[in-house]
Amino acid sequence: MIEAAVLGYGTVGSGVVEVIERNREEVSRRAGEEVHVKYILDLRDFPGDPYEDKVVHDFNLILEDEEVSIICEVMGGVGAAYQFTKQALEAGKSVCSSNKELVAKHGAELLAIAARKHCNYMFEASVGGGIPVIRSINNALTPERIEAVTGILNGTTNYILSKMEREGADYAQALKQAQELGYAERNPEADVEGHDACRKIAILASLMTGNNVDAEKIYTEGITKITAADFDYARAAGMTIKLLARASLQEDGSVLAMVAPHMLSKEHSLAMVNDVFNGIFVTGNMLGDTMFYGHGAGKLPTASAVTADVIDCIRNRDRTAWCIWEETECRLADVAQTKKKFFVRVKASARKAAEEVFSGSSILEVPEHPEEAGVITQELTERECSEKCALLKENVISRIRML
Amino acid sequence: MIEAAVLGYGTVGSGVVEVIERNREEVSRRAGEEVHVKYILDLRDFPGDPYEDKVVHDFNLILEDEEVSIICEVMGGVGAAYQFTKQALEAGKSVCSSNKELVAKHGAELLAIAARKHCNYMFEASVGGGIPVIRSINNALTPERIEAVTGILNGTTNYILSKMEREGADYAQALKQAQELGYAERNPEADVEGHDACRKIAILASLMTGNNVDAEKIYTEGITKITAADFDYARAAGMTIKLLARASLQEDGSVLAMVAPHMLSKEHSLAMVNDVFNGIFVTGNMLGDTMFYGHGAGKLPTASAVTADVIDCIRNRDRTAWCIWEETECRLADVAQTKKKFFVRVKASARKAAEEVFSGSSILEVPEHPEEAGVITQELTERECSEKCALLKENVISRIRML
Repeated sequence: MIEAAVLGYGTVGSGVVEVIERNREEVSRRAGEEVHVKYILDLRDFPGDPYEDKVVHDFNLILEDEEVSIICEVMGGVGAAYQFTKQALEAGKSVCSSNKELVAKHGAELLAIAARKHCNYMFEASVGGGIPVIRSINNALTPERIEAVTGILNGTTNYILSKMEREGADYAQALKQAQELGYAERNPEADVEGHDACRKIAILASLMTGNNVDAEKIYTEGITKITAADFDYARAAGMTIKLLARASLQEDGSVLAMVAPHMLSKEHSLAMVNDVFNGIFVTGNMLGDTMFYGHGAGKLPTASAVTADVIDCIRNRDRTAWCIWEETECRLADVAQTKKKFFVRVKASARKAAEEVFSGSSILEVPEHPEEAGVITQELTERECSEKCALLKENVISRIRML
Repeated sequence: MIEAAVLGYGTVGSGVVEVIERNREEVSRRAGEEVHVKYILDLRDFPGDPYEDKVVHDFNLILEDEEVSIICEVMGGVGAAYQFTKQALEAGKSVCSSNKELVAKHGAELLAIAARKHCNYMFEASVGGGIPVIRSINNALTPERIEAVTGILNGTTNYILSKMEREGADYAQALKQAQELGYAERNPEADVEGHDACRKIAILASLMTGNNVDAEKIYTEGITKITAADFDYARAAGMTIKLLARASLQEDGSVLAMVAPHMLSKEHSLAMVNDVFNGIFVTGNMLGDTMFYGHGAGKLPTASAVTADVIDCIRNRDRTAWCIWEETECRLADVAQTKKKFFVRVKASARKAAEEVFSGSSILEVPEHPEEAGVITQELTERECSEKCALLKENVISRIRML
């Protein structure tokens, strides 16, 4: 019998208890031993809850209980969660986390402690919810030089963009509906400004390279400036707009990491990832592209991923499972120097000027917007594009990267 | 330094040597040790090949060399490959295989030998080429009761069907082109009759349930009867036709396993898996649907999966990695009793009769085929549908299951 504790009895925490309880037989069979939740740590009480007798308020009770060997940290944040995780690992207890903020910020350090203490720090649920992309990078795509990871890693923004595409909705309308359905929070900033996707791509980029990618250094642009008009153009060009988080190996060995809305062909597999789903493309130098698709969030899928970590910790009880993420900083490429095509909307009066500035570009016009023109540029560096846009001054209405 | 041997120097075998050579740095880093191919077993000689000095013709040389701890069996077939694998495992050497025929037929037995000898039998490459679906079932989706696995598991037939869909080509034309491009073999039977997909779903169904699913007992129907006309109807209904291999848990605990062409909505994620790609949907009771997509065949993707197994064998040198596939027979459901909708084409003269026989069905007519009508039935068991078709006798032109 393995004794576990769950830190945080919110959506994911109650999901973990539910998965362990409802799938008791599967969990025991796959772990080779029964798993029992002995404690649930939360500041609140839960009178009437079937597990109210497990609820405790003092982490030390858990830390000092030698029976407890695995801790699920699903409380979030980088304050108490960080302290508790460090203390647990130092005490030789394995920790399974869904806390992407903490993993992105302190993953390398926490993994090093786990290795030193012969226990495990696992965090499958921190990226892509129930999609096993972390385990695939760590354990399955091992012979590959992973050249790029490109993902739709945030369900909230993907829901909003899918709705804008399908219904011609405005950003504000789509956000409001996402909030009503519980897909977006009252304060949606972390999602719509791209911070959540940024943390997740920082984690994937760190695992892809084995070195630490600092989320705060990743160029991040959200979806708040995307309009219904942008989608009118995308539709006319057989494309759509997605918030992509991307990390790619550059020729000089550095890594380009960024989060930004991109226009991409409707034929691209990522274009087919709609609503709250996540999709992650991994490109290996031998394997080519492999895609993982599924529920990127939600109570039970996320809890399932945490429980998968619990089972893996039990299987690796005597040792630290492989996960290469050193504290050495990964060298990031200068985004301004990287090349791609851009889609630039300009006022109709500046069309001629735009064609001159963006030589070799093609022009896209849509009947809905006779007062403007869309420019699909040649491949340019980010810097070149910014300089060219500056020449056109206030005639530039918007600019979106193309995949 | 780990010494390995490769059995069979064909497409996959030479790919394994190439992956280990070209990605030496990645392989060493992820395995924690360098991997060296000491022997290549083949009946032929390869004068001028850069590795000709490694080529041997006698398996006993490999078996008796105590330095060799890992063997890649990529020769195919169930004769010598079976003998060699058994002997290797009995000698405590781990075996990594891409041989789906052997894995489907003797997987449970070979895993049992590996467990007894504290070594490993791994076969990621036997299903889905480079797509890590086996590792995901074994190591990632572990808390799940897996309710269904539905996949496009054969690239050859998927290429043919994609071509028929896109170009309105006939089956014979599409097959011919697939053969010219090397996607189909001169004798394409194993692919087009569904046998290849059948072996793969037998493997996945065994891993999904933990009990042995006998490929020979799986209802298997190929794509040879699919016509351009079937695609005319599919197109009109916003659908397409794919060869699906499916295993699903039934309420009584039995497993329904089958391989057959299915009509499915163009909106379904599997409809977007085109050409030689594979796509596999795994449905868990907590997780919902997760999809894996990528190169289901090909030299380097398949070799990459074999090499991933080599690395995993090295990481699990001291023990047998988890893989639950008992020799106990899995109870298969009677296909005749299972329910689904069907698409039935009938002669126009029998349209009235068909509407009576298939009460509650809807009729689909396409301008290309005024001499017939398409019937989309209500949910029926396979038996009911066959009985109803029998009533309409030679008026039934074709019948396709719907997903």
